[in-house]
Amino acid sequence: MFSELQTEIEARYDIHFDDLSLLEEALTQANYINEHPNYHGRDYQRLEFLGDAIMQQSSAVYLFKRYPDWDEGRLTELRILMVQTRSFAALSRELHLDHYVQLGHGEEISGARNRDSLLEDLWEAFIGALYLDQGQDAVMNLLEQVFFSKIDTGFYDRFVDYKSKLQELLQKNGTVDINYQKISEEQIENNEQIFTVAVQLNGKQLAVGEGKSTKDAEKVAARRAYKDLTMDK
Amino acid sequence: MFSELQTEIEARYDIHFDDLSLLEEALTQANYINEHPNYHGRDYQRLEFLGDAIMQQSSAVYLFKRYPDWDEGRLTELRILMVQTRSFAALSRELHLDHYVQLGHGEEISGARNRDSLLEDLWEAFIGALYLDQGQDAVMNLLEQVFFSKIDTGFYDRFVDYKSKLQELLQKNGTVDINYQKISEEQIENNEQIFTVAVQLNGKQLAVGEGKSTKDAEKVAARRAYKDLTMDK
Repeated sequence: MFSELQTEIEARYDIHFDDLSLLEEALTQANYINEHPNYHGRDYQRLEFLGDAIMQQSSAVYLFKRYPDWDEGRLTELRILMVQTRSFAALSRELHLDHYVQLGHGEEISGARNRDSLLEDLWEAFIGALYLDQGQDAVMNLLEQVFFSKIDTGFYDRFVDYKSKLQELLQKNGTVDINYQKISEEQIENNEQIFTVAVQLNGKQLAVGEGKSTKDAEKVAARRAYKDLTMDK
Repeated sequence: MFSELQTEIEARYDIHFDDLSLLEEALTQANYINEHPNYHGRDYQRLEFLGDAIMQQSSAVYLFKRYPDWDEGRLTELRILMVQTRSFAALSRELHLDHYVQLGHGEEISGARNRDSLLEDLWEAFIGALYLDQGQDAVMNLLEQVFFSKIDTGFYDRFVDYKSKLQELLQKNGTVDINYQKISEEQIENNEQIFTVAVQLNGKQLAVGEGKSTKDAEKVAARRAYKDLTMDK
């Protein structure tokens, strides 16, 4: 089974994972072992300990070099957005680790295979295993393909609270009146609606946003206004 | 000035630090720059961001490989003890970074040069700089000489709360009576006293400890009892 994953990783990312027992360790959950008394392997938790630290350093090194003009506050902020449960879970799904994990029966029943917190642990364990098997350069190579590249697609934007950031930015020099105003609401297919909302500063419109709820539309408007104001597009 | 530190590091640790401007950046505090308008360098904070992550990964990799039989809980516990303000401050002093740091006038007056929190930041910044200048292997080489080696001397023991650990251990299978009993108190020079305390489990003596206060003596007794019981000497 793990040789299939090995083949898949080689085909998709041009990375050869050598030691299949390490790959198996990274994808074996403790209860699976408890339920298989003849199984002679370990669960993923030691590798998760290792991989957690490797994700932290890899991200810090990458951001430090990529953004030579950013101060440590901004670097820290982006790193926190990147290194978190939801983004690691997305990576596990992208590499199909969720297909391969060996779970205990109870975990299987309760839907752990699709649970972000498990998939986050698996990602860290997988990175720990890749580090031991192929070294830091292979880790950076994979992360450039699947993790760092997502900075440019705006992937981590979804984790940013732009309404708070916009408020912080506008209130830097004293109290201001920030207002979100519904402009329109349009019926589309499937009984769904599209809302359009404008964000206003002291009555002047900064940006508009659309979404399937007013809350979503507000977030979009806030992000656009924030990016316009900071030129961080 | 920084070439002196360069020479010192080479002589003591056989590590050649090449780029003196990086060394200077790691040892320059923001207010120093504010007070020197003609100074064309950066403060240490970006390097501190980098070095923090490098200390985390280096420690995780070292512990993972050194203790192949430890579970992730025990690995995490020792890493937390190692990677903390007081131990990093001790390392900065050991390398004399406190002598070389360029501080703002106010910080100098307020005694920042000897403040653990500043010295912790400097250590991380220095490790960030060493990583950029000489790479991961040089970092591991230095850490083996000054940081990991301290595991064997019991250096990190001082950060462990052995009274709590002993209590946890003894109460694993139900409530027990743990008691610390003063055995003696002896006058020594300089008006100081040495206290001797015994720790007892259900009235039976487990270990004794000595110290300049009963609290210190209790800690020593607890550590000895804990290590006897766990064979972790």
